[in-house]
Amino acid sequence: MIDMDEMWMQEAFKLARQAESLGEVPIGAVVILDDELIGSGYNCKEYNQNPIAHAEIIAIQEAVKKLNRWRLNDCSLYVTLEPCQMCLGALINARLKRLVYAAKKTKTQINHNIILKTGVLETPASLLLSDFFKKIRKLKS
Amino acid sequence: MIDMDEMWMQEAFKLARQAESLGEVPIGAVVILDDELIGSGYNCKEYNQNPIAHAEIIAIQEAVKKLNRWRLNDCSLYVTLEPCQMCLGALINARLKRLVYAAKKTKTQINHNIILKTGVLETPASLLLSDFFKKIRKLKS
Repeated sequence: MIDMDEMWMQEAFKLARQAESLGEVPIGAVVILDDELIGSGYNCKEYNQNPIAHAEIIAIQEAVKKLNRWRLNDCSLYVTLEPCQMCLGALINARLKRLVYAAKKTKTQINHNIILKTGVLETPASLLLSDFFKKIRKLKS
Repeated sequence: MIDMDEMWMQEAFKLARQAESLGEVPIGAVVILDDELIGSGYNCKEYNQNPIAHAEIIAIQEAVKKLNRWRLNDCSLYVTLEPCQMCLGALINARLKRLVYAAKKTKTQINHNIILKTGVLETPASLLLSDFFKKIRKLKS
């Protein structure tokens, strides 16, 4: 009997090898809906000089374009490596139903510090948002 | 005297208002290098039906395309709202130097649970990665 999870992970592997052939860290991902592949991607960060070009992000973008909706709440994503913080956040934003990954991350996170300044024009920014949501609620009521 | 942080945040505000004019949650972002705007974006998640189309992501992508490099370690990003987990992860992945935001998030995170399965083809996936890094180290030595 075919293990469907292994089968789709093999597809993610093929994509990881495509990344490797470009000299990229070999990571691949696929998005599956009703036993059909609707999105695929491989890491191409260096090739495209794009810090966002992770396998999962590319696979998600292909899937939402195909479905013409941002919610993936009926989809599974298979990826050969445990997602980073950005990709996990993207999967949450997309309301992904199910995540399957193969290898565990060995490094837990990138060692990088960002200088942070908060509260610049905080009041008008908060008002802009609260006014927007007030209007939305009025339209809905 | 002009407060540069307020000045750039005003640019982010203009972008937030562009989002609002499309009926999107009004959030805008700009990337600045050496007192020059090199990337801008506004939230267009609903318009593009893309869960990744946050202001910060679009601004980063424009900046790295302009610079033709994925590192933003000499850049500042201004955004009208505290970044979500995905965007913060993207800023870390891009090695951003400095983050300035206006409004604080009122909801700390989206209430969403993803079904998780780990370890599918874990060993070959781990080997694929470790073999890749071994090869890279050999090439460098």
